[in-house]
Amino acid sequence: MSADHLSATFAALADPTRRAILARLTLGEASVNELAEPFDMSLPAVSKHLKVLERARLISRGREAQWRPCKLKAAPLKEAAGWLDEYRRFWEQRLDRLGDYLHELQAKEKKKARRK
Amino acid sequence: MSADHLSATFAALADPTRRAILARLTLGEASVNELAEPFDMSLPAVSKHLKVLERARLISRGREAQWRPCKLKAAPLKEAAGWLDEYRRFWEQRLDRLGDYLHELQAKEKKKARRK
Repeated sequence: MSADHLSATFAALADPTRRAILARLTLGEASVNELAEPFDMSLPAVSKHLKVLERARLISRGREAQWRPCKLKAAPLKEAAGWLDEYRRFWEQRLDRLGDYLHELQAKEKKKARRK
Repeated sequence: MSADHLSATFAALADPTRRAILARLTLGEASVNELAEPFDMSLPAVSKHLKVLERARLISRGREAQWRPCKLKAAPLKEAAGWLDEYRRFWEQRLDRLGDYLHELQAKEKKKARRK
């Protein structure tokens, strides 16, 4: 997957409505009407979001003219997760340091409690 | 972290230059000049990218007036990875199905080979 695909994936995910649509599609295929239902949004507004998701290859749409069900495509999410995974050691280091700090605080509290 | 923070994170990551800046910062703190070096970009253009990364809390900047080193902050990346992780079973299912298909193809090839 090229850098541009990765940019398209992240850009598509940078919207709470689009993320909610993807979450809904984890339950199974859905039509535009079904996807629009939980949002206080016009069909054209939902269609616009679907186009962004489709261009980023995060969803595919059925060929039937009347009912074009949307389906989740997880491959770009895997690529995005793979990119983020390169940074795992940085947030884990941070948590390690936080763990050390909390441990230190607890030790101090225990020392205080013993003095009382 | 609120939905808006998650949107800010994904929006900040939706640019190859900003991702390259984050990758550079995994090697350690760096000044704007150092970050600008590998890109064919003006300092104001790099500063603009740094502002996006700073607003998304993906970097922090030192307080020194002259040399304000940028530092990677991994916490938003962890949140983004956590969000993506909810979709892991979807891309793993896909790989399982691909695995089944390849296995089936291999079995057919073997069968053909035996007939020759």
